[in-house]
Amino acid sequence: MGLPAPNSSEEVLERNSEYAVSHPGSYHFTAENFKSTTRTIIDLPVVRCAGGRARLAISDIAILNTLIGINEIILIHHTDCGLTHRSTDYMREKIEAISPLEAQKMDLEDLGIIDFEASINNDVSWLRNHPLIKKETKITGLLYDIDTGKLTKIASQ
Amino acid sequence: MGLPAPNSSEEVLERNSEYAVSHPGSYHFTAENFKSTTRTIIDLPVVRCAGGRARLAISDIAILNTLIGINEIILIHHTDCGLTHRSTDYMREKIEAISPLEAQKMDLEDLGIIDFEASINNDVSWLRNHPLIKKETKITGLLYDIDTGKLTKIASQ
Repeated sequence: MGLPAPNSSEEVLERNSEYAVSHPGSYHFTAENFKSTTRTIIDLPVVRCAGGRARLAISDIAILNTLIGINEIILIHHTDCGLTHRSTDYMREKIEAISPLEAQKMDLEDLGIIDFEASINNDVSWLRNHPLIKKETKITGLLYDIDTGKLTKIASQ
Repeated sequence: MGLPAPNSSEEVLERNSEYAVSHPGSYHFTAENFKSTTRTIIDLPVVRCAGGRARLAISDIAILNTLIGINEIILIHHTDCGLTHRSTDYMREKIEAISPLEAQKMDLEDLGIIDFEASINNDVSWLRNHPLIKKETKITGLLYDIDTGKLTKIASQ
């Protein structure tokens, strides 16, 4: 089954630095189709949601916490993500056009990605201040470059 | 890059029947650590959430629909899932104990899994009747057996 589960974001980055060397070049990715990076962190529980945005994963994180306990969260956004191609307003309008009531129930705040440093920093801070995340939980935000296969640390709180 | 993306749930099942033959036996899985099945459907956009429960994925499905359009949904639950080990009430109480307000915002209905036929049928019906899912979207519910690697069709609507 390959390597044992990594113990920290540092270990994920270390493994990725070996992996990126043999990265086969540009992949066709969709927003949730994040195979290369999940390959490096394959034995950790992975929540895969649109854009890797924290707001969409918080229920899963809270439920996972009841099942196994969460001591560290590694958040990853990736270049050429589908959410970089549409604005938050565009997506909200499309969903409201189908069902205004359901759109209201969803957290569609700050969904589109214009700048990865901003989106990753925002999500890490949002998680850091979330009532369901323990203060001692380590939170690291990484950017995955789909052209090079490289993970870069953007934020850590 | 392996095979091109499968076009339907039938093709996913067909590929799985070949894959299951060489399945290496029992894996250690966590709820969101669904590597074997994602390997068979790797080029489709994948939302990975606690238990594969539809309620936790609906926002992602709605957002993906604005980005790429969704014509078919393949929902997969797997044996020995973390959600089979705890009741809905247990998980709700744990989350309410941390933040009653945040627990209220979450859809924690019918979360624990007692019977896979029931959980898959419920989720497929829930999606079928959801205002954000088009009536012409095909919805198939599969069960993945982690011991044999085999996918079985449970529901189709």
